[in-house]
Amino acid sequence: MDITVAVDAMGGDHGTHVTVPAALRFLDDHPDVNVVLVGLPDAIEAELKARRRQSGPRLRVHAATEVVSMDESPQSALKNKKNSSMRVAINLVKSGEAHACVSAGNTGALMATARFVLKTIRGIERPAIAKMLPTRSGGETCVLDLGANVDCTPEHLLQFAIMGSALFSAVKHKAQPSVGLLNVGEEEMKGNGLVKESGELLRASQLNFVGNVEGDDLFSGAVDVVACDGFSGNVALKSSEGLAKMLSDFLREEFVRNWWSKLLAGLAYPVLRRFKKRVDPRRYNGASLLGLNGIVVKSHGGADRMAFYWALKQAVEEARAGVAQRIADQVQQQLAVAGSPAEAG
Amino acid sequence: MDITVAVDAMGGDHGTHVTVPAALRFLDDHPDVNVVLVGLPDAIEAELKARRRQSGPRLRVHAATEVVSMDESPQSALKNKKNSSMRVAINLVKSGEAHACVSAGNTGALMATARFVLKTIRGIERPAIAKMLPTRSGGETCVLDLGANVDCTPEHLLQFAIMGSALFSAVKHKAQPSVGLLNVGEEEMKGNGLVKESGELLRASQLNFVGNVEGDDLFSGAVDVVACDGFSGNVALKSSEGLAKMLSDFLREEFVRNWWSKLLAGLAYPVLRRFKKRVDPRRYNGASLLGLNGIVVKSHGGADRMAFYWALKQAVEEARAGVAQRIADQVQQQLAVAGSPAEAG
Repeated sequence: MDITVAVDAMGGDHGTHVTVPAALRFLDDHPDVNVVLVGLPDAIEAELKARRRQSGPRLRVHAATEVVSMDESPQSALKNKKNSSMRVAINLVKSGEAHACVSAGNTGALMATARFVLKTIRGIERPAIAKMLPTRSGGETCVLDLGANVDCTPEHLLQFAIMGSALFSAVKHKAQPSVGLLNVGEEEMKGNGLVKESGELLRASQLNFVGNVEGDDLFSGAVDVVACDGFSGNVALKSSEGLAKMLSDFLREEFVRNWWSKLLAGLAYPVLRRFKKRVDPRRYNGASLLGLNGIVVKSHGGADRMAFYWALKQAVEEARAGVAQRIADQVQQQLAVAGSPAEAG
Repeated sequence: MDITVAVDAMGGDHGTHVTVPAALRFLDDHPDVNVVLVGLPDAIEAELKARRRQSGPRLRVHAATEVVSMDESPQSALKNKKNSSMRVAINLVKSGEAHACVSAGNTGALMATARFVLKTIRGIERPAIAKMLPTRSGGETCVLDLGANVDCTPEHLLQFAIMGSALFSAVKHKAQPSVGLLNVGEEEMKGNGLVKESGELLRASQLNFVGNVEGDDLFSGAVDVVACDGFSGNVALKSSEGLAKMLSDFLREEFVRNWWSKLLAGLAYPVLRRFKKRVDPRRYNGASLLGLNGIVVKSHGGADRMAFYWALKQAVEEARAGVAQRIADQVQQQLAVAGSPAEAG
């Protein structure tokens, strides 16, 4: 099936300079994908022209007259930017003209707009931000929520677990992904009030819940899905990023310390490059906004072309696997069993 | 001033096999430090004998008849192990026979026992676990709480900030350490309820509060002290450890991939070793239990000799700087100003 992706061409720190070339490259690599570039037509056309490309059946330009700025409040974006590239791209998902949309625009505005336009899936109170993280065992672990919901109830965490499980199962083709609950220890008695109550709900659910996991399990491959509140999830993700930056700085410093280490760095370049490629955070760009009636992928705001390319990839994979529908099905099935009010959505 | 450290010789995964040699090495390196080894005399003497050493004026053996096991509940340790090596070592701090104590025993039991024996400083409701983490800028950042308190109030976070600030100031000789509040964004409006209210208290305090920081700032050197609830703090620390393990695995894998990369690894050994040494987590072993009337340092349970050595170093530094008293002074001064009930301690 051909997949059409709507791209918020104006979003992110670099706007069309990143989104347009990334989309062009993606089109070249994926013959069964179509792209709709949404934004200010002049800016998009200028970027296309600079690359000697033009729109055609697989690459459409869709005009939007406004741009949501990176520090704009969600309220302002919702109220004042009804014809923004972000909103129009999401509208295309709503109308069925696109199977998914990708934006590097500001997270708060994107979440608010997506939620307003697409609405949440029946049974889901709060959409969540999910991301696949690489693991030591060579696989990936889906972690959510990563910051959309900083105050959560146990019901929210159950819903996150169901959504993450459906996403993992759809994209990684695994029937019953294992689910862990992020905690400060593995024992059931550990944790704060939220985690203890969430554990009870998860144990009573139909999910393949294996119990509590700790922060280091985000990267150990111990479980397929880790559910957590958006505050801890965000802190975990960002502190890991901070540590990775520090280690990378230190490694570089050691290799440029003197002529001998510089020579070694030159000789070891292929080895170091393979290492760098393997842990390149750009390859993990693309967080999924789950729980909506449609597929929305958020790229990092500072993404370069390669990083934005990977966000497009994430969106296409989700569209191909019909993630939104699979989540809806899972939610109906699981929450009906758990006795929650699935009608409340 | 000579410093005397009481060592829970039985604590940790390896007991006397780690604690005794680490203490001996520490004594050799620090002529103005005395050590009291607390534990089962037979086990300690056997270890000393194996190393052809004996007790003397700087190295005393203090008998304890029981050992708190690594998975023992705090309640059980408190109730049933009144003559444990852990408890007796803490008693020595209480009685003034030691300036500080170090244990690699289980955290819950250590915290409960230390709190029971030493009591909390007047004005502090809950002791916290603090640790110095290395930063990209080459300095260190003190982060607390790292897991002692998983359900916190804004008042707790203010108290953590005061304690962390006093510790940093005492050990790093900086008059007004900068304090950040761990959050999911830098803007004041961001965060969960706890963080927003804590931010108000911190802004009203006499601390050098610079505002919200994010997870990556734990390693950026942006602030000297980061205050957070024990749940997020623990998650941040452990997820960073998990990522570090993954990166280290991947780097090793790339260097053993083929004969050429193995050769390079051999040649680059001094460079890689310097890097490894710089980020060696053993050098950051030793978490401080703050808010007690006495100095207690917790070593990682799995610590080896070198790691335990660093925990001893942390304890001695704190004792030399009179950290417990300085925290008490700061708490009285700051909380009296903030209008909190300093008498409630």
